[in-house]
Amino acid sequence: MDTVASVDTRPLSARELRARARAGTFDRPTSGHAPGMHQGNLVILPSDMAAAFLQFCVANPKPCPLLHVGAPGDPTCPDLGQDIDLRTDLPGYRVWRHGRLVDRVTDIRTLWTDDLVAFVLGCSFSFEEAVAEAGIEVRHRVVGRNVSMYRTGISTAARGPFSGPLVVSMRPFAPADAIRAIVISARFPKAHGAPVHMGNPAAIGIVNLDIPDYGDPPTLHAGDIPVFWACGVTPQAALEAAAPPLAITHDPGHMLVTDRPSTPDADL
Amino acid sequence: MDTVASVDTRPLSARELRARARAGTFDRPTSGHAPGMHQGNLVILPSDMAAAFLQFCVANPKPCPLLHVGAPGDPTCPDLGQDIDLRTDLPGYRVWRHGRLVDRVTDIRTLWTDDLVAFVLGCSFSFEEAVAEAGIEVRHRVVGRNVSMYRTGISTAARGPFSGPLVVSMRPFAPADAIRAIVISARFPKAHGAPVHMGNPAAIGIVNLDIPDYGDPPTLHAGDIPVFWACGVTPQAALEAAAPPLAITHDPGHMLVTDRPSTPDADL
Repeated sequence: MDTVASVDTRPLSARELRARARAGTFDRPTSGHAPGMHQGNLVILPSDMAAAFLQFCVANPKPCPLLHVGAPGDPTCPDLGQDIDLRTDLPGYRVWRHGRLVDRVTDIRTLWTDDLVAFVLGCSFSFEEAVAEAGIEVRHRVVGRNVSMYRTGISTAARGPFSGPLVVSMRPFAPADAIRAIVISARFPKAHGAPVHMGNPAAIGIVNLDIPDYGDPPTLHAGDIPVFWACGVTPQAALEAAAPPLAITHDPGHMLVTDRPSTPDADL
Repeated sequence: MDTVASVDTRPLSARELRARARAGTFDRPTSGHAPGMHQGNLVILPSDMAAAFLQFCVANPKPCPLLHVGAPGDPTCPDLGQDIDLRTDLPGYRVWRHGRLVDRVTDIRTLWTDDLVAFVLGCSFSFEEAVAEAGIEVRHRVVGRNVSMYRTGISTAARGPFSGPLVVSMRPFAPADAIRAIVISARFPKAHGAPVHMGNPAAIGIVNLDIPDYGDPPTLHAGDIPVFWACGVTPQAALEAAAPPLAITHDPGHMLVTDRPSTPDADL
């Protein structure tokens, strides 16, 4: 009884969380676990589309900060954790066929082939954690919601079949807190770094802040400034455009937890 | 003829500018000269008020970043430049008696006594230069005006007779440029560091952005965000409150140019 309760509340180490996901005993969002470590977005593609996707990430480093590029058929990821098996160690996966989401699973061993290439991209949890630790209210965490995400009118730099809108996440802050959140997030270039916009949503093609395209509606207080960061959902929008016969990603919120430190300036 | 023309256009080194000010042949604003070096605000006070002013600066580090505190009667400043004589090396001084401005001079040797203590405080030129070098338009420089400065509704932390409003300087930027200017300025903590506010002027007690209390009216473009930094004029407002029998400051814009590097992170 006691152990079950503690599983639900204490942060797990990255290695512990991966082991549980691998054993099928952890299938929840990873936020709050493995503090101080990078968590990663996962994108798996057939090898004949991998070079174009790599070019897409290099051309769009704010939404797609590369943490790992695998060799074809290699599901390990020793640069982010010696024991990692990308086929089992995430608590949730999405399966896409021809650009459409067709399944959600907790293990992709039966889908894995020698032709697949895995990409791990940095995620905003790192800078969010640092902003919160600086005593700044990260609103969606405080109210227990997912962050609000929007497709913008800003186009990514297209590479091969990969193109589409820049997706942004939005966090509202009082002005003085917004300034500190900007400075802090700039110290995490592998977690999307400094924001891309703040203030007027219409200036980047967002019609209604109350209706995000992904995540939950935001909670703004009087005087808040909405601050917009490049978002790791951007490659999923590009996947829809590229429509590969098979693609596998993490299920949003169910990230790869890594052993790579994400402390301020670790990636500058 | 040629030498006169070159004096007016090329940036002088700090040592060269000080030598000319000392000789009485340079009495203009120092902006643009001694690039990459700190320029300083000067405050000179009777020794019996020096301890309280030092406490005021320590309690208000954003508007009053200390670069130098002299011993009573010592007009040198070897930590900022071996040859500095603070009585002659600035191109312009203001003389205050009982909190009121009574004179502008280019040399204070006849006013100097063994009882006076000199303070040098950092100035925003350092981060402005870095922002401009990053390719970001610093509006007041582009349009050839002084920066706009405002007394705010925010009180400084009072120490002894020194108190008064926080004075801020305002620079307008397009949102993406504002984000970069914030991140860059944070790397210059001895030049006021990151801003204290952005967006709505009324939130910090500024009634009309078009009517600054010091400097020139601003030039805002559609979509600009006004960004507010703590300003080195704050101690002059505190001097008015403290009303010492004698005080001497630099004449605004006519700063002490120093040999102390002001490159990014030099003072972190």
